[in-house]
Amino acid sequence: MAETPDSAALGVMAMTRALDEARAAAARGEVPVGAVVVGPDGAVLAAHGNEIEQRADASAHAELLAMRAAAALRGSRHLADCTLVATLEPCAMCAAAAGHFRIRRIVFGAWDPKGGAVDHGPRLFDQPGCLHRPDWAGGFEQDVSATLLRDFFRQRR
Amino acid sequence: MAETPDSAALGVMAMTRALDEARAAAARGEVPVGAVVVGPDGAVLAAHGNEIEQRADASAHAELLAMRAAAALRGSRHLADCTLVATLEPCAMCAAAAGHFRIRRIVFGAWDPKGGAVDHGPRLFDQPGCLHRPDWAGGFEQDVSATLLRDFFRQRR
Repeated sequence: MAETPDSAALGVMAMTRALDEARAAAARGEVPVGAVVVGPDGAVLAAHGNEIEQRADASAHAELLAMRAAAALRGSRHLADCTLVATLEPCAMCAAAAGHFRIRRIVFGAWDPKGGAVDHGPRLFDQPGCLHRPDWAGGFEQDVSATLLRDFFRQRR
Repeated sequence: MAETPDSAALGVMAMTRALDEARAAAARGEVPVGAVVVGPDGAVLAAHGNEIEQRADASAHAELLAMRAAAALRGSRHLADCTLVATLEPCAMCAAAAGHFRIRRIVFGAWDPKGGAVDHGPRLFDQPGCLHRPDWAGGFEQDVSATLLRDFFRQRR
């Protein structure tokens, strides 16, 4: 049997969880982005929303926090069999970190033409010298993710 | 009086400290890279070497740790009046993080044609959409820094 149907279902569940993290971040006054690291069996190893304000740490993006937490859980600095699921296209910091953690695959929600670094800007995994290129795909639940962000910034204006 | 002579002296002291952190990292079995965040008066706010192995965290680069520690010390997610001094040209993760922390200036030691992202590869601060461009300069004590790295990798072969 192909693993596709289960993978797809697990992917939807992981994005649902990442969107929950994004909503929880917004409720804390954080830009609503969420991320989940999923193991090869589909188990959620770690889930985080942005904690930039809460930690007073500009690097506390959901994706970086989730990858650090997953690595801590495993006691390993590599997550080579894991998928990073994020509600927004990762920035250069988080995309490069995904390379350092040797993440196998990145699945993201909304595209980010201004801050994204996977399919926009530096397109890090397309750089000639890139040492680790995760598979990636974007656009999953992009409307939900983009609406969360739009509503958040509209309320703060 | 111009602040140049003092700044230069403080810069040398900060790089000396960063190199000490790199040597301490090597002694712990870490790739010898060190970094220091210096405040506007030249005071060292934070200093770190790599702690990738020690923390089992692929994102625990000296630069990122030093910026996070400096922000924690200040209770502020921005370090807009600070200089990041690193023994090696920062990678894409650390350079992008320096942008997120709004670091004023980056001073680095050895150039890193393979992993560097300031003067090599994606050249992040030259990207058209880059939101924050620190001043930067490289090549300070580059022989000392490069020798530390070469010796470390030679011993491990």
